[in-house]
Amino acid sequence: MEAFDRYTTLINDSLNNIEWSDQKLYDPMKYILKNGGKRIRPSLTLVGAELAGARAEDAISQALAIELFHNFSLMHDDIMDRADLRRGKATVHKQWDEPTAILSGDGMMVMAYQYLIRNAFESTPKLIRIFSKMALDVCEGQMKDMDFEQTIPSMDEYIDMIRQKTAVLLGAALQIGYLIGKDDETSASRLYHCGVNWGIAFQIKDDYLDLYGGEKSGKVIGGDILSNKKTVLHLIALSKANEDDIQKLNHWFSNNDRSQEKIEAVKHIYEKYNAHNDCLVMANTYFKNGNNLFNELVLPREPRKRMAKMAEHILQRDY
Amino acid sequence: MEAFDRYTTLINDSLNNIEWSDQKLYDPMKYILKNGGKRIRPSLTLVGAELAGARAEDAISQALAIELFHNFSLMHDDIMDRADLRRGKATVHKQWDEPTAILSGDGMMVMAYQYLIRNAFESTPKLIRIFSKMALDVCEGQMKDMDFEQTIPSMDEYIDMIRQKTAVLLGAALQIGYLIGKDDETSASRLYHCGVNWGIAFQIKDDYLDLYGGEKSGKVIGGDILSNKKTVLHLIALSKANEDDIQKLNHWFSNNDRSQEKIEAVKHIYEKYNAHNDCLVMANTYFKNGNNLFNELVLPREPRKRMAKMAEHILQRDY
Repeated sequence: MEAFDRYTTLINDSLNNIEWSDQKLYDPMKYILKNGGKRIRPSLTLVGAELAGARAEDAISQALAIELFHNFSLMHDDIMDRADLRRGKATVHKQWDEPTAILSGDGMMVMAYQYLIRNAFESTPKLIRIFSKMALDVCEGQMKDMDFEQTIPSMDEYIDMIRQKTAVLLGAALQIGYLIGKDDETSASRLYHCGVNWGIAFQIKDDYLDLYGGEKSGKVIGGDILSNKKTVLHLIALSKANEDDIQKLNHWFSNNDRSQEKIEAVKHIYEKYNAHNDCLVMANTYFKNGNNLFNELVLPREPRKRMAKMAEHILQRDY
Repeated sequence: MEAFDRYTTLINDSLNNIEWSDQKLYDPMKYILKNGGKRIRPSLTLVGAELAGARAEDAISQALAIELFHNFSLMHDDIMDRADLRRGKATVHKQWDEPTAILSGDGMMVMAYQYLIRNAFESTPKLIRIFSKMALDVCEGQMKDMDFEQTIPSMDEYIDMIRQKTAVLLGAALQIGYLIGKDDETSASRLYHCGVNWGIAFQIKDDYLDLYGGEKSGKVIGGDILSNKKTVLHLIALSKANEDDIQKLNHWFSNNDRSQEKIEAVKHIYEKYNAHNDCLVMANTYFKNGNNLFNELVLPREPRKRMAKMAEHILQRDY
């Protein structure tokens, strides 16, 4: 995706140039950051700066802050979710142990704050406020996600969860980048809402791709079904299904069966109620909401085109 | 301790006035903050502000930031140390579960940053830098403390560990309070070093009190020996003992025996080498270092007297 390439290179080069202390606390940070990832979130910070008329380079510290925060949350989430693998490699608490993953994650969040304020001067208080609000949203969202293992959320509750857990980070990434380029809180805040809408679209699409993503993703197809995750597909199906099918879905999700048969059976019910199409329609609605907000903003031509391409890439990716 | 009373009241009142969201993320925060504690660290922030000629009230947000950070670190340390009780009540990961304690601790650290910058205006970047450096020290110190379960540190390594894990928070608490009152980085930094020296004295005394603190502490006497913790007492004894006694100490610390006999036997060896007296001498040396640095500073009379009393209280407490 060419619109991303320049940003990804800049981010990876900057990550490689971090001068790490040789203390053990930092080993898991280096490890998880080396594990790659698409660097979507910090790229949004860089394009955010360009949208405000600045250079991508001017917001590189803030982009690193966003990437450090994202990886802090992955490190801690993996402990909570008891995940053994991330992108094909052992998760930090498996490679080391839980205390190390807790502590190193804590340190990573602190480092995110350090990078956030670098060369930020008088916008520092604003950045800290936006970033901290976002960080609390992410924590609240993760808490809700865990609680949803025990209950069945309404669609509104689910969307609010993914807004907090996933989407606000994309919104804040854009907003922070923009504020580095220009002290215009109104436009920065509008950009935040674009990012939040695109982020919700992104996560809804992610729910879809878990079952329809094919092998490019490197993930187990139907992994969400195997772990009884109530995705958008599941909630749509539950809202439309007859009593018999609701009972079937609840039955499949009431145990730790990890068979291919379970995936096929659940998928069959989802499709019977057109959940896969409804899911794409929902993603598209949030995508368009984001686009509409974006189109209202007066922005420089070239970065605007890049941003539009990136947003489309977020929705159109098929893996 | 009257020098503390006014500060403690101010801090507890302010903690009680926090308007909490009713989301589950915040329940463990309220719980651990209600569990009390001496509020020594935030009190240092308040007296720090007075030392700079401001009112204690002016630094109350920053004092809460210090207390929130302290309790974040307790919440996460308790998971890592597998502690079931804190001040006689179930620890957060026992009262709820580990994911909740990880996440709520994360949120508490974010809140600490939010309080840190309240009404701080142009000193915000400075505060964030000092606070973040301190926070990374605390994480590095906790990592070392855990690693020392597997190895025997030198005395220098041990002191450096307690400096990072415990003392820098006291130093930063004072420094931050002072900076709220006056934009004088030189004096604030000197005050930091006073706090660090007092903090090291505080922790060495804490090692002593584990064995000689009596029942007022509410802790198990000899708890450090039962959990094979290499305290200052232990390191002093190891450095002076003959081969036979070193083997005995290593033997006692090589298993999970939690008998009274173990406490008595280890205590006997400590005292044979005068570790208890050496330990008090060491604590006093750091206390005096702090006092000497403090006496070089030009400070208003009344808060200076209160600070000196508080520092003495830290060292002289017998529980």
